Amino acid sequence: MSSRRFDDSDFVRACRRQPHERVPVWFMRQAGRSLPEYRAVRGAGSILDAIADPDRAAEITLQPVRRYGVDAAILFSDIVVPAHAVGFGVDVVPGTGPVVEHRFEARRDLQRLRLLDPASDTPYVIETVRRAVEMLDVPLIGFAGAPFTVASYLVEGGPSRHHERTKALMVGDEALWHDLMDRLADLAVASLLAQVEAGAAAVQLFDSWAGALSPDQYQRSVAPHSARVLEAVGATGVPRIHFGVGTGEILDQMGACGAEVVGVDFRVRLDAARRRVGPGRALQGNLDPALVLAGESAARDGARAVLAANGDDPGFIFNLGHGVLPASDPDVLARVVQVVHDEGRVRCE
Amino acid sequence: MSSRRFDDSDFVRACRRQPHERVPVWFMRQAGRSLPEYRAVRGAGSILDAIADPDRAAEITLQPVRRYGVDAAILFSDIVVPAHAVGFGVDVVPGTGPVVEHRFEARRDLQRLRLLDPASDTPYVIETVRRAVEMLDVPLIGFAGAPFTVASYLVEGGPSRHHERTKALMVGDEALWHDLMDRLADLAVASLLAQVEAGAAAVQLFDSWAGALSPDQYQRSVAPHSARVLEAVGATGVPRIHFGVGTGEILDQMGACGAEVVGVDFRVRLDAARRRVGPGRALQGNLDPALVLAGESAARDGARAVLAANGDDPGFIFNLGHGVLPASDPDVLARVVQVVHDEGRVRCE
Repeated sequence: MSSRRFDDSDFVRACRRQPHERVPVWFMRQAGRSLPEYRAVRGAGSILDAIADPDRAAEITLQPVRRYGVDAAILFSDIVVPAHAVGFGVDVVPGTGPVVEHRFEARRDLQRLRLLDPASDTPYVIETVRRAVEMLDVPLIGFAGAPFTVASYLVEGGPSRHHERTKALMVGDEALWHDLMDRLADLAVASLLAQVEAGAAAVQLFDSWAGALSPDQYQRSVAPHSARVLEAVGATGVPRIHFGVGTGEILDQMGACGAEVVGVDFRVRLDAARRRVGPGRALQGNLDPALVLAGESAARDGARAVLAANGDDPGFIFNLGHGVLPASDPDVLARVVQVVHDEGRVRCE
Repeated sequence: MSSRRFDDSDFVRACRRQPHERVPVWFMRQAGRSLPEYRAVRGAGSILDAIADPDRAAEITLQPVRRYGVDAAILFSDIVVPAHAVGFGVDVVPGTGPVVEHRFEARRDLQRLRLLDPASDTPYVIETVRRAVEMLDVPLIGFAGAPFTVASYLVEGGPSRHHERTKALMVGDEALWHDLMDRLADLAVASLLAQVEAGAAAVQLFDSWAGALSPDQYQRSVAPHSARVLEAVGATGVPRIHFGVGTGEILDQMGACGAEVVGVDFRVRLDAARRRVGPGRALQGNLDPALVLAGESAARDGARAVLAANGDDPGFIFNLGHGVLPASDPDVLARVVQVVHDEGRVRCE
């Protein structure tokens, strides 16, 4: 399937700031624990097992599109899949997140991060993308973890509040840090190119924890590597989304990394985000996922406030400011989709 | 002891933006697990037991002043002490943080938050302040948790990543939310006034998790209650510090709550923070605590960058952007104090 088949969809056109019909909407983690149909097919064991099974992974990818009528699907996978596939030794523990067996500590650990050959290392990802794209009538978004966020898991050994080991490496051994980031950028590029090749119509680079950095740290140690990933994928022509949480202070720098779309969490008003990111880019966001737990009325009011802050700017994709929380009520999310489709405005330019 | 005894100290004068000699410096959580002398006297059991023992608590309060020569001490206590003292049922679990036995869920739970009578409910806090002030030759900072951050612990039942129950209550039952915030504001006011009465020369209001809110949520549901606490303490004449983490988007609103000093975490450059907070207020911050773990050279470079971003503005207190991490090397912190004292500049106005 061609990754350009959906160039006329609302979603892809919004990424490119082209005129389109309705404000497109999808949700980060829309495929996941909040859905009963997900829990029914997910099975026991590591999420990495479910990801390695294209039957299940494609089905899970499609579920939220069927249920919500969202304007895009996102591949069911995980940002640590490439590192896992090259044998780094990482698992995803339910309720915890990625956990690595032996932390990245020294130069010798670089050899644990060889190049990814998607066809032989992650054939299941390619197969899942193919099957999902074949069955979908909306664009599929492929994704990868940005080098910094993946590095944080490998260096800390798991989820971290302060990312202290990662920052210590970043400032304590700059040469090793950049070598590590280079390897992780290579993994992300190889994985994303394979997903686009298999039919993904857009990609998202998740730098979820980039907001833990000061603007100086981000500029010096992180931005160049994310920019390289985005640039490599740019050659495919599919739109690129660049996302992180708590990134208010670095939105301008993230915008400068080159993606067509910058993701914004709920802490920044969209109009303020637009000023920081600058003209020519689209935004994605930014309803507080906690408001979905607060019930239909709160979620609807929140969605309307997001739409109002966007006005009728065509460069806008509605999403949450972070992933769907597991305890979310799917009916509330369905109502949010309805509000966005019914009330979102897109001006013709 | 009079709380005005230290009006001529560098610390208090910097809070008031008055000319003074050296850039003052202290560290959030300077008294704590990073110090071997703390671990030696802390004892086993809950931290609430150590706090309830004025001998130990005063000694712990003094330790970092002796070791580092910092320009202020901060009371050894915890933000949940008032709620614990009125019998809400909260403990502090090592490695986890505050954990409550029965979550705040409904209107009936308000009765579990009666008014605090510091003299009978927390006599040990008053006694600790008195003893510490008697022995100190620098100002003692008293503190309390801001209503939102304390509410988050009581409503979530413990530390939380997304504060989803708290936000659900905030938007789902506004009347109950404001009643809860009123009670918690009363606790904070009573506790802070008693600390100042006992000799604290300044106070800090910790709204550590306020950065989890959107600017609209903060303005509507949180700011008025923090402002009331700060206003009530303002009558004493001691300087007030207002602190939170990840607050880049709400610094202007925090400044408008009335404190003389606004705390800034490491995500925002000090010069940008100053523009947002506006004239007439001092800033406190903002070295990334993770840089202390990265070693002496990284910490020193980081400290110099903070000093450079401040220039010679007299309204500045050097601190970390968040608390000292437990694994920090005290020798590195001592070097940071030295750099600030040797190289910090204060212009005469």
